[in-house]
Amino acid sequence: MSDYLTEGGSAASPVGLVETQYAEFEVLPLDSGLQLAPLEIAYETYGSLNADRSNAILLLHALSGDAHAAGYHEGDDRPGWWDIMVGPGKAFDTDRYFLICSNVIGGCRGTTGPASLDPKTGQHYGMRFPVVTVPDMVRAQKMLVDRLGIPRLLAVAGGSMGGMQALEWVTAYPEMVDSCISIATTHRHSPQQIAFNEVGRQAILRDPNWCGGDYYDRTAPDAGLAIARMIGHITYLSDGSMHEKFGRRLRDKEVYGFDFTMDFEVESYLKHQGEVFTQRFDANTYLYITKALDYFDLANGHGTLVEAFRELPAETRFLVIAFSSDWLYPPYQSKEIVRAIKGNGLDCTYLEIRSDFGHDAFLLEAQQQTHLITHFLEVTAHRRGVGG
Amino acid sequence: MSDYLTEGGSAASPVGLVETQYAEFEVLPLDSGLQLAPLEIAYETYGSLNADRSNAILLLHALSGDAHAAGYHEGDDRPGWWDIMVGPGKAFDTDRYFLICSNVIGGCRGTTGPASLDPKTGQHYGMRFPVVTVPDMVRAQKMLVDRLGIPRLLAVAGGSMGGMQALEWVTAYPEMVDSCISIATTHRHSPQQIAFNEVGRQAILRDPNWCGGDYYDRTAPDAGLAIARMIGHITYLSDGSMHEKFGRRLRDKEVYGFDFTMDFEVESYLKHQGEVFTQRFDANTYLYITKALDYFDLANGHGTLVEAFRELPAETRFLVIAFSSDWLYPPYQSKEIVRAIKGNGLDCTYLEIRSDFGHDAFLLEAQQQTHLITHFLEVTAHRRGVGG
Repeated sequence: MSDYLTEGGSAASPVGLVETQYAEFEVLPLDSGLQLAPLEIAYETYGSLNADRSNAILLLHALSGDAHAAGYHEGDDRPGWWDIMVGPGKAFDTDRYFLICSNVIGGCRGTTGPASLDPKTGQHYGMRFPVVTVPDMVRAQKMLVDRLGIPRLLAVAGGSMGGMQALEWVTAYPEMVDSCISIATTHRHSPQQIAFNEVGRQAILRDPNWCGGDYYDRTAPDAGLAIARMIGHITYLSDGSMHEKFGRRLRDKEVYGFDFTMDFEVESYLKHQGEVFTQRFDANTYLYITKALDYFDLANGHGTLVEAFRELPAETRFLVIAFSSDWLYPPYQSKEIVRAIKGNGLDCTYLEIRSDFGHDAFLLEAQQQTHLITHFLEVTAHRRGVGG
Repeated sequence: MSDYLTEGGSAASPVGLVETQYAEFEVLPLDSGLQLAPLEIAYETYGSLNADRSNAILLLHALSGDAHAAGYHEGDDRPGWWDIMVGPGKAFDTDRYFLICSNVIGGCRGTTGPASLDPKTGQHYGMRFPVVTVPDMVRAQKMLVDRLGIPRLLAVAGGSMGGMQALEWVTAYPEMVDSCISIATTHRHSPQQIAFNEVGRQAILRDPNWCGGDYYDRTAPDAGLAIARMIGHITYLSDGSMHEKFGRRLRDKEVYGFDFTMDFEVESYLKHQGEVFTQRFDANTYLYITKALDYFDLANGHGTLVEAFRELPAETRFLVIAFSSDWLYPPYQSKEIVRAIKGNGLDCTYLEIRSDFGHDAFLLEAQQQTHLITHFLEVTAHRRGVGG
């Protein structure tokens, strides 16, 4: 997601101050056959769990997101990554629902990842951290939800990689999920999506400062990570939104500089995004999370995509949202998901929202998403008989 | 353009063996106000100039192309970059026309560029080479065409950056050009196109081996150049062609490797393309040529795009070709060119060819391009009364 999106948001989030919490687990078995032990999961909650524990919704973050979905951390001037969607009266209404969001395993924002210390050696894991998958991320979240004493989730919801986790959740734990909201996502990474990730990874792996992943006590591979982030940013915006946002405007000059300093505003924007990212994100985590994205294929272990939804209870509900200008996860990929769901006779609402914001639209298009999600959750809660 | 395109082409080119020739010039004035002195231009020719010198066509290459458009160099097993289009009976019929193709200034394939020795210092230019523009490239080609004793060009033709040069030619030297064939190109780089180029440049500039551009006597910044090339390659292919070509097929393994070696074929392809490129291309040239692309705006010096075509003779003819799956230079950009040409009452044929090959289609879609270009050139030659 884009860093600029919440810049300058001066109005305080109605969610108010929040704190990240932590849960410890002994061991997590992984798809690779290895295991992660121990495991700490960073998470936040917003709103209150009702008496019968039936109003819990799990929010799932994207590649560069974290557990901090809404509200403010003490001292911060920017709210969580989905604050426009989470709060009193918002799409994920904290007056009605209990929201949970956790940082994925392999992350660098509180949950155990490659930057964590391996208790066996006392050293940072680095590349000795096991490769993790989207199903592994979801398996960890299942442990967290169990720990919180929540027997069923009213919904699992997320955009981009968060949408993949939502789809994985409902197919891996069908008896635990009433509904699934998958936004701007895919059921499997296409070769083009893999290719963009691979170039980002190569930029990190070929940075001399990467040092085989053991850079935690020295200079980090910021150049490689910044390049990876810049590539990502191009894919998050649309051609149209870049025309609107930058055009061919020059930066701090009236005419071409005829040199290799920044000429265009879009260059300056990318450079800034790359630099800001290196201050808050770990290069090894970038490697691990993009690999998990590339490995993601909802059909894995099911045979086909249609079969992935075969064991779901008939009352499971789906909301699938795509954005017209999203060329990173184009609408055709969401439609493939919808066809597979409907192929099992399940209830699925699909909408392609017209937006110029590209992939980032899931972080920006508050109004239309709010309308859709509010109604979808109301119906889901009503059918389940959710109490106050 | 993609290296793989001509791989395995075992049939010898009908153009046969060709040799690159060189022309020396004292000085070339540049848009920056600086000048290049002296200048050597590498060029090739195919076919024969007719008695009245009226059958000459200038072919213009793309970012990574060169003067070697067709035929074979002694010892090579691959023909020139547009061999499918240039030869006896082909679109650019060497039995009828005299074809010229030269390497652009700033290049690294024979024409003076940053890797050349600066006669003033005896050292490689490196980043002391002046920044060049597409109009500068065209100004150099004009000197070459004059040197060859050709008063008028029957056509200027090229794809991608070659298409930009073709448009620049016809607007800069309207009295010298009968017709213009611009393929898979744009009248100005959009912010998204600038952004992709800038990330490639940053990958080179941040490679420690780049050394401010003075790497010619030591290790070259191959890592950065390879990253830049990989990014480029993604933009040259379409989502559909990558599905077709790679899908999610694994490379040399049956199941996920759960490590950071290559898993997918598309990763291996990109890595190969990056490596091959570093063996034949200079990183500094990549910086200079992409900068020229980003600076390109046909309206520069004219006011508007429509006004750029205002001074053209009424009989000037245009053929504009775009490809349906080209998302690097999307058809809408070609349509903007067509509207501006037609806004001046000029003759312009436009076709969007349906193709899954993405931007690379201009190097691959021989049949439809041949049909269009053959007819277009025949009419142009007929109107001009071109003799044998």
